[in-house]
Amino acid sequence: MTRFVGVQDMVRWIGQSDVTTILNGMMDYLEHDFQRWQVFDKSARVASHTPFGVIELMPTSDHETYAFKYVNGHPSNPARGFQTVTAFGVLADTHNGYPRFMAEMTILTALRTAATSGLVAKHLARTDASSMAMIGTGSQSEFQALAMHAALGITTLRIWDRDPDAMAKFVRNMRPRGFDITVAADARDAVRGADIITTCTADKVHGSVLPADAVAPGVHINTVGGDCPGKTELDPRILHLGDIFVEYTPQTRVEGEIQLLSPSHPVTELWEAMTGRHPGRTSPEQITIFDSVGFAIEDFSALRYLQDAVRGTDFETYIDLVAEPDDPKDLFGMVGSLSPIG
Amino acid sequence: MTRFVGVQDMVRWIGQSDVTTILNGMMDYLEHDFQRWQVFDKSARVASHTPFGVIELMPTSDHETYAFKYVNGHPSNPARGFQTVTAFGVLADTHNGYPRFMAEMTILTALRTAATSGLVAKHLARTDASSMAMIGTGSQSEFQALAMHAALGITTLRIWDRDPDAMAKFVRNMRPRGFDITVAADARDAVRGADIITTCTADKVHGSVLPADAVAPGVHINTVGGDCPGKTELDPRILHLGDIFVEYTPQTRVEGEIQLLSPSHPVTELWEAMTGRHPGRTSPEQITIFDSVGFAIEDFSALRYLQDAVRGTDFETYIDLVAEPDDPKDLFGMVGSLSPIG
Repeated sequence: MTRFVGVQDMVRWIGQSDVTTILNGMMDYLEHDFQRWQVFDKSARVASHTPFGVIELMPTSDHETYAFKYVNGHPSNPARGFQTVTAFGVLADTHNGYPRFMAEMTILTALRTAATSGLVAKHLARTDASSMAMIGTGSQSEFQALAMHAALGITTLRIWDRDPDAMAKFVRNMRPRGFDITVAADARDAVRGADIITTCTADKVHGSVLPADAVAPGVHINTVGGDCPGKTELDPRILHLGDIFVEYTPQTRVEGEIQLLSPSHPVTELWEAMTGRHPGRTSPEQITIFDSVGFAIEDFSALRYLQDAVRGTDFETYIDLVAEPDDPKDLFGMVGSLSPIG
Repeated sequence: MTRFVGVQDMVRWIGQSDVTTILNGMMDYLEHDFQRWQVFDKSARVASHTPFGVIELMPTSDHETYAFKYVNGHPSNPARGFQTVTAFGVLADTHNGYPRFMAEMTILTALRTAATSGLVAKHLARTDASSMAMIGTGSQSEFQALAMHAALGITTLRIWDRDPDAMAKFVRNMRPRGFDITVAADARDAVRGADIITTCTADKVHGSVLPADAVAPGVHINTVGGDCPGKTELDPRILHLGDIFVEYTPQTRVEGEIQLLSPSHPVTELWEAMTGRHPGRTSPEQITIFDSVGFAIEDFSALRYLQDAVRGTDFETYIDLVAEPDDPKDLFGMVGSLSPIG
């Protein structure tokens, strides 16, 4: 049988665990896997585009364990009562090819995307960073704030979204948790004095959610919302202000903010900064930019963390996904007493 | 919630339905989809190779419905008590990207592979075909025999496998169903007088399961076992004896028997024969060869057939795969009463 963590079990697991512990644990798994980046099979995700959005498969393998995620992105979904992104994922044993673990990943992806942002900020933001501007307060925003708190202790937030209801929802969810939240008048106001700028908007356009002249020296920019061709968030002039860090260059050239730059524009891969091969931030004035699009290895790390965390608990169940005939050459024997062909 | 057909429900469904009805119904869905071949997104499958086997993702879409299958192929698995092939698959709604239906596909793939062979034989074998040679009597073999019976009424079988236990299993499973089965002394003996030759062996080598001079005029060859680079069944001289039909040329050039031929060797795609664009068989002496590797659209058809067949019955259950927050922008609200960050 295949182990399974469904939505309600995921919700219970997060509710009964400490979310900071989960995010920190996931960051450890992510960092471990970034540091052994070379062993993974890497390929750009396999995308099926429609006029309304995209459905993607994201596979990777470290030659012991294979993982893939199914994920959609449909920006017009919320207006119709659906979520922009839903996902699920699988871990399999490469030695026999059997799927061993399946989990909902709508919530898990929110955690892994935030944990990746937190881990990257731990490596690239100024060590004295104490405040974050949050541009876009949709589904991913609370998770981003919690991850920056887990990674760097950040409790001061300045938020902006063109949808007042989304800002009210963010305040309602996060103020009771102890965050000091300022609702800004616009994006320029939001980033005033912030040490980290996180942009997380969903429109499938080349957007410009922030004026370039509002970006101050020394900030770390964490741009999360642009993640497919034709979908970017930042005025490209901002990208010329700092040093750009990416997950997997061939994918980010197509999907990330840097799709608007020359294909030869220099970028650094995160694993280089996490292994010491690249120095990362080199001065307090430097602007660092994480062009986050999400890569399959992060899902691999998140699934592995979840699998280990819930093993043997009642947060996992089993699904009847793989036929197990007594004789592996006798699959037909399983379907049993069929009537004669007559 | 996502509708789900697990292994035990699949076994019950087949047991309580008539397998000939299932195979004929699946052939109708396959033929319908082959006839509208042009509307589908088509790409070669995404393969992750290991020393022991391969794990593949096979996506396709008709722009209304998206489907993918997870499938492994590990030829050394049976010696270790595992099946060579296991699989599961998903149908999703392209309009919102939500996965709507999931099913085990170890058994379903066996049915769809056999139904495809049956449908192709209906189009390409001689109309007076009455006997089949079955070379390789592993997991897929009984399904092939049942599909050739469903498609063409074939009840006379001549079988050969180098594993006597596998042949005994085949006889044990199929003789009670009314098939007239001759256990041959070798492959040459098996194909003597047969109108259809089905080869279905699993070694990951360039094998030669049949002498070229044993192939008589007028036969239809259904070669099922070769399906990845380095894995073929037929002496390439056999391929020069007849006209070759394939599913999706770019994939079959890499994975099929024709990987051993020149990339310019002429082949016909099945949809051409099924829409009348190509005449198919043109004489009783012609040798026709279906170089079967399995294509994503066949899984799409099989999943659609299953989904329609089990709708509203107790053969389907539900799995808790997709988070459904009350407010689609408030995913965080689902994970609820988290403790303060303190």
